[in-house]
Parts: sequence; C-alpha cells; structure tokens
Amino acid sequence: MNRNDKQAYDRGTSLFSPDGRIYQVEYAREAVKRGAPVVGVRTKDGVVLAARRSARSPLLEAGSIEKLHKIDEGLGAASAGHVADARKLVDFARETAQTERLRYGEPMSVESLSKAITDNIQESTQYGGTRPYGASLLIGGYDDKPRLFATDPSGTPHEWRAVAIGGHREDVQAVLEDNYSDDLSLEDGLVLALQALAESDSELTAEELDVATVSADGYETVSAEHVAEVFAEVADEHEDEQPDEE
Amino acid sequence: MNRNDKQAYDRGTSLFSPDGRIYQVEYAREAVKRGAPVVGVRTKDGVVLAARRSARSPLLEAGSIEKLHKIDEGLGAASAGHVADARKLVDFARETAQTERLRYGEPMSVESLSKAITDNIQESTQYGGTRPYGASLLIGGYDDKPRLFATDPSGTPHEWRAVAIGGHREDVQAVLEDNYSDDLSLEDGLVLALQALAESDSELTAEELDVATVSADGYETVSAEHVAEVFAEVADEHEDEQPDEE
Amino acid sequence: MNRNDKQAYDRGTSLFSPDGRIYQVEYAREAVKRGAPVVGVRTKDGVVLAARRSARSPLLEAGSIEKLHKIDEGLGAASAGHVADARKLVDFARETAQTERLRYGEPMSVESLSKAITDNIQESTQYGGTRPYGASLLIGGYDDKPRLFATDPSGTPHEWRAVAIGGHREDVQAVLEDNYSDDLSLEDGLVLALQALAESDSELTAEELDVATVSADGYETVSAEHVAEVFAEVADEHEDEQPDEE
Amino acid sequence: MNRNDKQAYDRGTSLFSPDGRIYQVEYAREAVKRGAPVVGVRTKDGVVLAARRSARSPLLEAGSIEKLHKIDEGLGAASAGHVADARKLVDFARETAQTERLRYGEPMSVESLSKAITDNIQESTQYGGTRPYGASLLIGGYDDKPRLFATDPSGTPHEWRAVAIGGHREDVQAVLEDNYSDDLSLEDGLVLALQALAESDSELTAEELDVATVSADGYETVSAEHVAEVFAEVADEHEDEQPDEE
Amino acid sequence: MNRNDKQAYDRGTSLFSPDGRIYQVEYAREAVKRGAPVVGVRTKDGVVLAARRSARSPLLEAGSIEKLHKIDEGLGAASAGHVADARKLVDFARETAQTERLRYGEPMSVESLSKAITDNIQESTQYGGTRPYGASLLIGGYDDKPRLFATDPSGTPHEWRAVAIGGHREDVQAVLEDNYSDDLSLEDGLVLALQALAESDSELTAEELDVATVSADGYETVSAEHVAEVFAEVADEHEDEQPDEE
Amino acid sequence: MNRNDKQAYDRGTSLFSPDGRIYQVEYAREAVKRGAPVVGVRTKDGVVLAARRSARSPLLEAGSIEKLHKIDEGLGAASAGHVADARKLVDFARETAQTERLRYGEPMSVESLSKAITDNIQESTQYGGTRPYGASLLIGGYDDKPRLFATDPSGTPHEWRAVAIGGHREDVQAVLEDNYSDDLSLEDGLVLALQALAESDSELTAEELDVATVSADGYETVSAEHVAEVFAEVADEHEDEQPDEE
Amino acid sequence: MNRNDKQAYDRGTSLFSPDGRIYQVEYAREAVKRGAPVVGVRTKDGVVLAARRSARSPLLEAGSIEKLHKIDEGLGAASAGHVADARKLVDFARETAQTERLRYGEPMSVESLSKAITDNIQESTQYGGTRPYGASLLIGGYDDKPRLFATDPSGTPHEWRAVAIGGHREDVQAVLEDNYSDDLSLEDGLVLALQALAESDSELTAEELDVATVSADGYETVSAEHVAEVFAEVADEHEDEQPDEE
Repeated sequence: MNRNDKQAYDRGTSLFSPDGRIYQVEYAREAVKRGAPVVGVRTKDGVVLAARRSARSPLLEAGSIEKLHKIDEGLGAASAGHVADARKLVDFARETAQTERLRYGEPMSVESLSKAITDNIQESTQYGGTRPYGASLLIGGYDDKPRLFATDPSGTPHEWRAVAIGGHREDVQAVLEDNYSDDLSLEDGLVLALQALAESDSELTAEELDVATVSADGYETVSAEHVAEVFAEVADEHEDEQPDEE
Repeated sequence: MNRNDKQAYDRGTSLFSPDGRIYQVEYAREAVKRGAPVVGVRTKDGVVLAARRSARSPLLEAGSIEKLHKIDEGLGAASAGHVADARKLVDFARETAQTERLRYGEPMSVESLSKAITDNIQESTQYGGTRPYGASLLIGGYDDKPRLFATDPSGTPHEWRAVAIGGHREDVQAVLEDNYSDDLSLEDGLVLALQALAESDSELTAEELDVATVSADGYETVSAEHVAEVFAEVADEHEDEQPDEE
Repeated sequence: MNRNDKQAYDRGTSLFSPDGRIYQVEYAREAVKRGAPVVGVRTKDGVVLAARRSARSPLLEAGSIEKLHKIDEGLGAASAGHVADARKLVDFARETAQTERLRYGEPMSVESLSKAITDNIQESTQYGGTRPYGASLLIGGYDDKPRLFATDPSGTPHEWRAVAIGGHREDVQAVLEDNYSDDLSLEDGLVLALQALAESDSELTAEELDVATVSADGYETVSAEHVAEVFAEVADEHEDEQPDEE
Repeated sequence: MNRNDKQAYDRGTSLFSPDGRIYQVEYAREAVKRGAPVVGVRTKDGVVLAARRSARSPLLEAGSIEKLHKIDEGLGAASAGHVADARKLVDFARETAQTERLRYGEPMSVESLSKAITDNIQESTQYGGTRPYGASLLIGGYDDKPRLFATDPSGTPHEWRAVAIGGHREDVQAVLEDNYSDDLSLEDGLVLALQALAESDSELTAEELDVATVSADGYETVSAEHVAEVFAEVADEHEDEQPDEE
Repeated sequence: MNRNDKQAYDRGTSLFSPDGRIYQVEYAREAVKRGAPVVGVRTKDGVVLAARRSARSPLLEAGSIEKLHKIDEGLGAASAGHVADARKLVDFARETAQTERLRYGEPMSVESLSKAITDNIQESTQYGGTRPYGASLLIGGYDDKPRLFATDPSGTPHEWRAVAIGGHREDVQAVLEDNYSDDLSLEDGLVLALQALAESDSELTAEELDVATVSADGYETVSAEHVAEVFAEVADEHEDEQPDEE
Repeated sequence: MNRNDKQAYDRGTSLFSPDGRIYQVEYAREAVKRGAPVVGVRTKDGVVLAARRSARSPLLEAGSIEKLHKIDEGLGAASAGHVADARKLVDFARETAQTERLRYGEPMSVESLSKAITDNIQESTQYGGTRPYGASLLIGGYDDKPRLFATDPSGTPHEWRAVAIGGHREDVQAVLEDNYSDDLSLEDGLVLALQALAESDSELTAEELDVATVSADGYETVSAEHVAEVFAEVADEHEDEQPDEE
Repeated sequence: MNRNDKQAYDRGTSLFSPDGRIYQVEYAREAVKRGAPVVGVRTKDGVVLAARRSARSPLLEAGSIEKLHKIDEGLGAASAGHVADARKLVDFARETAQTERLRYGEPMSVESLSKAITDNIQESTQYGGTRPYGASLLIGGYDDKPRLFATDPSGTPHEWRAVAIGGHREDVQAVLEDNYSDDLSLEDGLVLALQALAESDSELTAEELDVATVSADGYETVSAEHVAEVFAEVADEHEDEQPDEE
C-alpha cells in the first residue's frame, strides 16, 4: 500500500483500512516513540519507574518536565510521548483513583486503574470528533503485591514484569529481557532500569534521570544522589562490556 | 471494482457501494483476521473455549493478554481481533449480563446476551460518527443446555456447534468440521479444540494456550497442566499423521 | 451517466442525482439482492412464508440463520438482504406490534405494522448521519382476512397476493405470476412457494427450506417433514418439465 | 454551465449556484417527473382527482399503490414522484388536518393545509442534514367552494383550476388548458381528467385509473365501473380525433 | 478570479473569499433577480407597492402567486426572488408583527419590522447548516408617516423613497429616479409605479399587475379596474415617447 | 505561498496555515476595506466620529445607511465593512451596554464595551460553524475622559488617539498622523476628521458626510449645516495645497 | 515529507501525521513566533516580566497593546503571538484565579494556574470544532517563592528560571542562558531581561518596552523612567561589545 492509499484513511479519525488497520492509532504510536524512553521494572518488593528527562535548556526547571507522577498513595505512573496528552492521561488517572477511593473507602487497584485509563483511550479511537492520545503510560502500584501495567494508543492494557515505552523502545526492552529475573530486589530493579536506559543513548548522564519506586511503603522518589551512584556503577560496567566501541 | 473505486466508499462510515456492500464492515472483518485464532466447541455437557495467546515478549504477563473472559456465572466469551475493541465488547457483555440478572432475578440467556451484543455492533455500522468494532466474540454458556454463539462486525449473531474466528480461521474450521460429532463429551471437546488450534500453526506450544469450559458447573478455567497433557497427545497424533512434512 | 458521475452522488447519504434518483437507496436494493430469496403467498385461508437458508457450514445451527420470524400471534415476517439490518427491522416490528397491542388492547393490523416499518425506513433515506437499511421484509398476517405486504429500502409498503424478494427475485416471481390464483388453499400456497423457490437454484434441497404459515390459527412453523414431502413432489414435477436440461 | 460545474453545487444540500439556482430542488423535480401523472380538476361542484397506477405486476394489490388519499372529511390528495416521500407528505397532511380540527373544532381549510405542507417542504431545502422531498401533492378540498392546490419540491403552494403533475406533465396540462372552462360539472371534470390522462400514454387502460371527488358531500372514490364507462367514451373520441395516427 | 477559484468558496456556506466577499450571498442576489420585478413608491400620503405576476398558465389562480402581502393593519410587503423563501420571510414578518403588537399593545413600526427581518436574514449568512434566503422584501407601512424599506440577501435594511427589486431592477429603478419627487400623491405614486414596471417589459399587460397601498387607512388592494385604467394611460404615454422603437 | 496553497486553508473556518496565519480573518479584513472609510478623533473634550455614506441612489434615505450609531448616553460607534455584519455588532454593543447599565446601575465603560465586543468577535474566529465578522467598529465614549477604541476581525481591541478604518485607510490615517496633537478641541477634532476623509477621495462632498461627537454632554449628531461649513473650509485648504494636481 | 503531504493533515484540526506530529499545533507555534518577544526572569526576590510593544502607529495608545497583564495580587502574565487569542487566555487566567481564590479563600498557586491554562489549551488541540490557540503565556508569581511558567500551543506547562517566547526567541534565550545565575536580585533580573530583549533587534528603543515585577509585594509595573535608565546602560554595554558591527 503506497503513501497515497494510506492518506485516504488518515483523514477520518476512526476508519479501518482495507487490511483492517486504524492508521490514526498507528500514527499516535509514532508520537509515543518521539519522546524519551521510560522504563518500569517489577520486583519482589515493588515497582521501579525510571525516565530520562529531555534536557532542552539549562534554564528549564527539571521538575516541570517530570515524566514520573505520583497518582495516589500506592500508585505511580511514568509517561512517554506527546507531553500535553500525557498530562491529560495522568490527570485522568489521579481523578479516577481519588474518586474511586472516596467512593469505596479503599485504594483503587492497579488493574482497575489501568483499565479505566484504557477505556478512556479506546473511546478516543472509535468515535468521531477527537484524535487518539499520542502518549502512553506505565502504571506501577502495590495492591497485595507489586504490579506494572502499560497502556498504548489503541487503548489496550498489558501487564508486564519489565517494560520500556517511548523512543528507542526496542533497544531498551532488549536489555530488560536479557537481564530480568523474578527474584530481583527493589535495588536490583533500580540497577536494571538504569542499565536499560543507558542502552538508549551512550551520552546519557545521571542528571537527566528520574527514578521512583512504588512498594508497600507507597510511592517514593529515589534521591538524585542515589541515582547518580547507581548510574556510575552501571556506566562502568557498560564501558567494560564495550571497551572499543564508539 | 478497482482500488480507487473502493476508496470512494471507505471514507464515509456507513454507505453502500453500488454492489450493495459496506466496505468498513468488510475491513473490520480483516481486523478480526489479524488476531490469533480462538475456537469454541459445544459438547453434550458444556462449551469449550480455547485461544492462543500472542506471545510477543517473555516479560509480558500472560494473564493480561487473555482472550478468554468470564462474563457471568454460566457465561464465557472468547475474543479475536483488535484487542481494545474486544475489551469494550467484553465489558459491554459483562455489564449487560449483570444488569439483566439484577433486573429479572435470573441469569441472562446465552441467546439474549448474544443478541444484545450484536444490536450494539449493528448500530456502530449504520449511524455516522463511529467506526465498526474490529473484533468478534464467541459467547458460550449453559442455560438448560450448552449453547455457543459467534458475533461478527456486521452485527449478526450465529449459533454454532463448533466454530473458529480470527487468524487462519479457514484451516481451523476445517478441522472442526471434519471431526465434530454431536455426542462429544466435554473432554472430547477440549481435545478437538486443541487439535483445531494446532492446525493453525505447526509451531504452537501448550504454553500459549488458554482453555475454559462453561457447563452446568459454571465457567471454569482448565489448568495449564491439563492443557499441556492434552496438547501433547494432540501433537503426537498430528505428528503421526504428517510424519514427513515440513 | 458513467461511473465517475455516479460516485459524486454516492458520498452524501441522501442527495438526488440530476435525473432524480437516490443512489444509496438503489445500492441498498443491491444489498437485498445479495441474500437468498424469500417468498410470500397469500391464500384464502392464510399467508405462506418460505425462505431458503444459506447453508455456509454444517456446524452452523439452522435456527440462528432463520429468515422467518414470528412477530406477534397473528403476524409473521420473512427477511432478505443484509442480515444485521434485517434483524433490526424485525426487532423494530416486534416492539411496535407489542406496544400497539398493549396500548389499544387488540393486535396491530398487518397494514399498520407495514406502514410503521416503512416510515422508519424512509427516515433512514432522507436525513443525514445514517445509511438506508440493506434489507427488506415480507409481512404476513391475518386480520379479518389474510394480508401480505413487502417493504423495500426506499420505505414503500406494497400489498401483494404473492411476492418474492432477495436473490434471483425475477425468476422466482415469474413462477408466482404464472401459477397464482385467488382460490388457493393454504396447502396449495405452500406448494406454489416451494415451486417458486425451486426455480431459483436447481440444486436447492429440502433441508435448506423454512416455511411458516399465518392463518386464523396464528403463526405456525411448517414441520421439516411436511416441507420435505411437498418439496419432493415439487422437484419431481420440475424434473418432469425439464427432462433434458442441465 | 457544464456537468462538472453543476456537480460542485450538488453535493451541499442547500447552496445557491452562481446563477441563483438550488440544484437539489431541481433534481427533486426530476424525481417527481419519474412517476406516473396525476390530475386535478376544479369544477363548480367539487374537485376531481385522477391518477394512473403504475402496474408493475399482476400480483400487486392495486390498493397499496394508490396515489389518491383521503386526508380528512372534505380533503383529498393525489401524489406524484418518489413514493416513500409522497407517503410521508400524506401522513404529514393527515396529522396536520386532524390536529387542527381537534384544536379549532372545525375542518382545516384547503389553503391552510397546503401552506402547512409547503412550509414543511421549504425547510427541507434550506437547512442542512436533509434532502428535499422528491414528491409533489395535489390538495383538493371543499371549504365553502371547491379549491385545488399543488405543491412542488421548492415548497411553493399554487392554486389551480386544473393541473397535472408527474410524468408527461406538459402533454397532460396542454389538454387541460385546451378544454377547461369554469362552468364544468363534477361529471364534466371527471371526463376532462380522464381525457387528459389518456393523452399521456396511448396504451393507458381503465383498470389503471383511480379517481376520487371532493365536494360538499366530502371525499368519495369513483367506482371502477363508472371510471371504465367514462374512459371508454373518452377513448372513442380520442380515436375519432386521431384516426390515422400511430 | 476565475470560475475554479470561485467554486472553492461556494461550497462552504459562509466563508470569505480572499477579496472579502461572501459568494453564497452574491448568488442569492442572483436568485432575487430571477423573479419578476416589484416596485415600491413612498408618497406624501402612503406607500404604493406594485408587482408583476408571472403568468405561467391560464389555469393558475392569480391569487396564489401574489407578490403583495398584507402583514398587519398598517404594514404591507412585496416580494421578489425564490418564491418559497419569500413566503417564509413573509410568514416571519406576519408572526413578528403580530407578536410585537400583542406584547406592546401597539402596531410594530416599519423600521423595527424591517430590522427584525434582516437580523433573521443575516444569521442565515453567518452560521453553518443553512443557506441564505434567495428572496428580498419591500416593507411599506405607515407609522406617523409613510415609510418604505427594502431587505437584501446579506441582511441589510435600507430605507427608500422609491425602489425596485427583482428582475430588470436597473431599468425599473432608472424610471423611478428620473420621475420621483417628494410631493407625489398616492395616485401619482401609483402612476409612477406602473410606469416603472412598464419599462421592464414592453409586453406587460394590466392583467399581470397587482397593486396595493399602505396609508393612514391601512393596507388596501387597488382594484383591477383602476389598475387597468391607470396602466392604459401609462402605456399610451410610453408609446408616445417611443413612437418608432421596437 | 501560491494561490492553491492558500485555498487549502480557506475552506476550514479556523485553521492555521504553516506560517501561523488564519486566512479567514485576513479575508474578513479585506471585507472591511471594501467599505467607505470612517474616522475617529479623540480630543481633550470628547471624541469625534465621522463617516462617509456610500451614496448609491438619490432615492435611498440617508438615515438608513448611517455608519454612526448611538450605543448609549455616552457611547457611540462608527462602522466599516460588510453592512449586515456591522449592524449585528452594533446591536450586540447596544444590548451589552444596556444590560450592563441595568445590572450595575451605571454606564458601561468604553473599554469594557470594547472588550466585550472583541471577545464576541474572537469566538467567531476560533470555533467551527461560523465565519468571522467582515466589519470593524470604532467605539467612542466619555467615562471620565474621552476614549476611542477600534475593533478588528481577529477580535483585538486597540485604543487610539485618532484612527481610520475601512477603504483607503492608509491615506486617511496618514493625514491623522501628520496633523494630530493632544490638545485639540472638539471643533479642531471635527476639522481634522473631515480633512482626513477628504484625503480618501477628491470627489467627496459634504452631503455624503455624517459626523457625531461623544463628550461629557453625551452622544450628539453634528448638524449637516455645520458639517458643510467645516468641509468647505477644509476643501479650500486642500485645494490650496494641491493647486496643480489631478 | 513534501508540502502536499503536509496539507493532507492540516485540514482536520487534530489528526496525527504518519510520523506522529500534529501540524495544527506546530503551525500555531509559528503564530506565536510572529509576535514580538517577551521575557521572564526568575530572581531570588521575584519574577521580572518584560515585553516589547509593537509600535505600529504613533496614534495608538500604548496601554491597549500591553503584553503584560496583572492576573491577581501575586500573579502576572506576559503574552506572545496572535493578540486576540492571547487576550482570551489572559481572561481565562483572570477568571480562573479569581474563582479559585473565592472558593478556597487563598490565592491560586502559580503552578495550579499554569496547569489550568494548559489543560484548556490541550483540549483545543484534541477535540474537533476548534483550532489551537496561536498564543503563549509566561505566568510569573510568588507563592512562597518566585515561580515562572511558560505555556505553549500544545498545552504543556514548563517551569523556567528564565525564558523568552515569541519572535526571535532563539537569540533572546541565548542571552538569558549565557548570563543567568540563581542569585540575581530583582534589579539584576530587570537588567538581564532588557539585555536579552535588546538582542532581538538592534533598533529597539526604551519607549517600546514594558516591564513588570511580581514579588512578595505583589504585581508592580516598573516605571518608564526606570526602564529607560536601565535600558540606556544595557545599550551602552551592548555597543561596547559590538563596536564595529552592523
């Protein structure tokens, strides 16, 4: 199918192409890939969420381009893609989690929240008058055990042990697949997350990294110092592995 | 009718072509074929639903890509096609079954549920502002006897003794037609379902399979162990039949 | 008027062409012709409705592809064309007949029901945001005497003594016109209906046939046995008439 | 203005062309001309309405393709053009006449009814989301004296002494203009109406004709016998006038 | 700007062209010019409204193609252009005048009525979903003194001493400009109006003319006899002036 | 950017072009330039508003083409551009000023009124289903001191000491810029306004001019006699300055 | 991707292109760049906002083209881009800040306000029927400490230490990045802001500059005299640095 044929299906927000695809959803996936990568790792003790800030100017406050978001006591999210759309999904997540907690007197489960978000996303792909969201979220939380979900622009929730979304997703995911095991500690998970992100760009620095954990203790931001320490080790190993490259 | 002519009818969601076809519905059927196959077999004692999970990454939790869904005590569904659309139909099925049960004090019949779902689907094909659903469901249940229905993107419910939907449908359905008989036991039905799925891809493994039954005892998931056992036998037979192929 | 000119009028749901035609309605008529034929015959004692099921798979339950529908005690319908649209019209007919009976304490007349259905159909052809129905119904009933109406995609009701709609309509209707008389008994009507359907395809078998009658005794399904008996006679005669053909 | 230019204005339902025309209305007039002709003649004593049924099949019930419609005690209508649209206008006329009579305790005047109908039609030509009506009505009635109005697809009511609408309108109207006088009796009007219709097609037969009168005695259908008698005389004269033609 | 360029702006109902024009409004002006001319003359004692009926058939009742309309006791209108649109504006005028009179207990002023009508017209040119009105009105009335307004398809009211709208407007207006003076009597105004209309077509006859006056005595139709008398004089003069022409 | 490229952005009412422009707004500005110029001059004692009537016919009442409008006691407006749109903005201004005065018990300030009008205009440029206004207003008033605002089709209010809008704006504005000083008296302002308008067309006559002032004494129309006197002086000077030209 | 391909995505307000971009948002960014630059500098003691007025005419009142806006006691904004859109965002900011203060009894925080504004902007980019805002705001305020946010047409809020938006953004921002330090006093910030703006155009004069501060003392406009003094120094330095250029 050539470019002209594709365009015929792009103009309506939610039509199928002859081979059963919805191009606007596929293009929204491209929007997700335009952002920096974010990573989630589920460990025995909790979920690690790690993201690379896109450092466009030294005068930009790091906090305002955060890709990690506390949703509720035991719920966190990491976002990739079109930033304004991601913010809207995060706001939706916060309001939904809060409303549910007030209504039922207990925190919303990670799975319920993930499904509520993807229901919202799916509707943006089927009805006219709106475009899909050009952003995806990782939802990490701790109900009785740690759980990690990812959303995508079609509105499908998937549960993962470890996952990367955003730019350079394939490379980062490969590191996760090669190194993941089910008995990682939270600290091990942090190491793996940074190791994976390091893969996406050899010039990545610790300053660009944000890391948070969601465990039985709730959502916690990992201190910049600790991130720098761990990243230094990760970088050393990386260098050892690739002594002559680049 | 050439490609250019077709496109003229694709852009409006719900127009007829000169030969009386609705292309968006036909393209949605292509979306159904893009997914993995799912199978339903009605036996004397209940309905068997079997599906192949698409195993895209070892880190993906199997449970989150389930294609089998408990709808209510005595009602189950298997889905094929665009995953986000399928989830929406499954949610619709659950809410409808629940509402009806509360309203009338007894479970909704398989037939009534199937018709409610297809009414919903048909409307997505006739009115503007929305696209058809790119997903189909098998609805299995036990009212006084086992019943099995399939929906399609045009919004038509069909009752089947045994049926396959999704990718490689023709091959899988052929196995069902060759081997089905009305006096199958539930266990026989399980064997037939796996035998049929095995036909769709010679590299299929037991780990990718989900099976559930709906009988007088309600909706029950078949254990992975039992699935593996039965699949091993099925595979052996298959091998016996095709010793020199591939 | 060539193909390109036609397309200009197809895209809007309800515009007139320069020669005063509404193409979407004409294309919906093509959708009706894509289905199997159904026949209605009005006799002194009641109306005979007969249809050929499209037997796509031996595993498909015959009942779920029924083209004959009981609407109310003394009202039946036969449908041709896009199945999902036909189901919707049948549902509309049932709800309308039921509502009217509850409101006025007596059954709805065949004529009133036929007009209510065609009003609904006409609106789908004049207002934007929807496509026409790609299905037609025969409505048979018994008020004080037997009556038989047919609807079409433009929304016009016609009363007939005997009529065929659906695929091969012209051939089937020709048999009706050649053999109809006003003093047929219900059984004579059944013979004529099957004779007409037999004309549509020389490979038709009795198993594919559904027949129902609507008389002073209400809507009744004719038993498969009786259908087979009558069809055997009809087929014999047919063979006698065309000994050397095909 | 060539075909391509015209098409540019056809697609919007209600735009003006550079020369100040509304093409959809003009195309709807073509739809009116596609039907059989109907005639109205106002006489001293009442209005005669006459129409030719289009006899497509011997099995079609004449009554169901009637083009003459009793609207209320002293009000009748004859319709030409797209049948489903005509039915809708007739239904609108009946409901309007009935509602007005209930509200004011006296029958609606012919003029008021004609204006209510054309207001409805005009709106279909000015607002988006709908197409014009492809049908016209003659409204005949008796308030204190006989009156006869015709509607057209632009939504203009005209009062006539005698008028033809539908197919072959020009020929039929010419007969009316040549033979009309203000002192016709109701019977004279009937003769003139049939004479005019006879002009439209030399193969017209009495069986195809429907005639009704609206006088101080209300709406009355003329018996088929009387129509046949009068038509025989008319046909004889016609033959006398054109002994050597055709 | 060539034809193709123009068409680009025609399809949306209410867009500006690069040179700041709204083509649909200009095309609606062409629709006004397609009708017969109507004339208004304001005199010391009242306003004269005169129109030429378009005499398409001898069987058409003159009254039903009237272009002069009594709006209220002291208010009249003359219409030009698309007849169905003109009727709608006249109905709007009547309802508005009546509602205002009931609300405030005194007749609506000519100016207020003219502005209410043009507000209505302007909205049809700015908002989507509707086309402009293809008709213009002259509004004549007597508040404390005679006043005469004209509307146009853009929705602008203008007050005139004497004005022509509709077909051949330029020729007719030229006669008014050459012969108008502020001290005309009502009878002088009638002469001038007919003189002006006579200019539009040398074959105009008195029978085609409708004339009304709105003075302190209210709206009055001028008798056909008096119109014929005056027209005969006007025609004589006209002939005298142009003895050798045509 | 060539003509074809521009057209692509013209069809949607409110899209940006690749260089960040909204063409419909720019085309609406052209509509403003198609009208006659109007001028506002703010002096120590009040604001002078002056406009040239477009004198299309000697029979047109000057009052009905007024471009100066009293909005409230201490508020006046002058309009340029598409007349029907200007009327609508003036009506909006009057209703807004009146409503505000009733609500707060004191006159609306010139600035508040100007902002309310431009809010209304801006919305016509951002939301679909409507076109921008093809008209601009000068709003002159006296709160505690004289103030003068101009609106434009984008919906921006600007405060001016002296300003011209409409046709030949650049020439007229140049005269204002060359001759304006902050200590003008109201009479000086009148002279300057006429001097500026005289620049727009050497054939301008005093009869075509309307002038009003808004001062502590409220809105007052300047008498035609006084306008003629001042214009005569202005014209003399103009002639003196350009003795040999044209 | 060439021009034609881009246009295909421009016409719908909110569709993704195949590479995941939303062109209307990118074009709205161009609209922001068409305006004059504005600068924000966060210092220890407060935020400095500085803007260059576009001085189109000496008769235009400086106040009415202000780009600096007091939003609430401790909140200010500077705007760049399409002026009418900027006004609308500023009005939205004022109403939101006021409503929040009334509801919660304390001033709205800078961050909350910035997010409320960008939520509003994001919606204009996802739903049909509206275009994005062609304007951006700097929001400066003092909660417990000074904070400075910028919005953009995609609806993303960013927090900055110092930032420029509007025309020549890159040059101006470079000056800020070269000279910013965290320990600037409010007066230092003023110097830096003017220095940065001076970079955008060597012909900038002090008269064109507006400066305001938001500190613990609230929103305060810096006097024209002080601005002129500081600018003189800045200009001198600038000249010293570039003695031989231009």
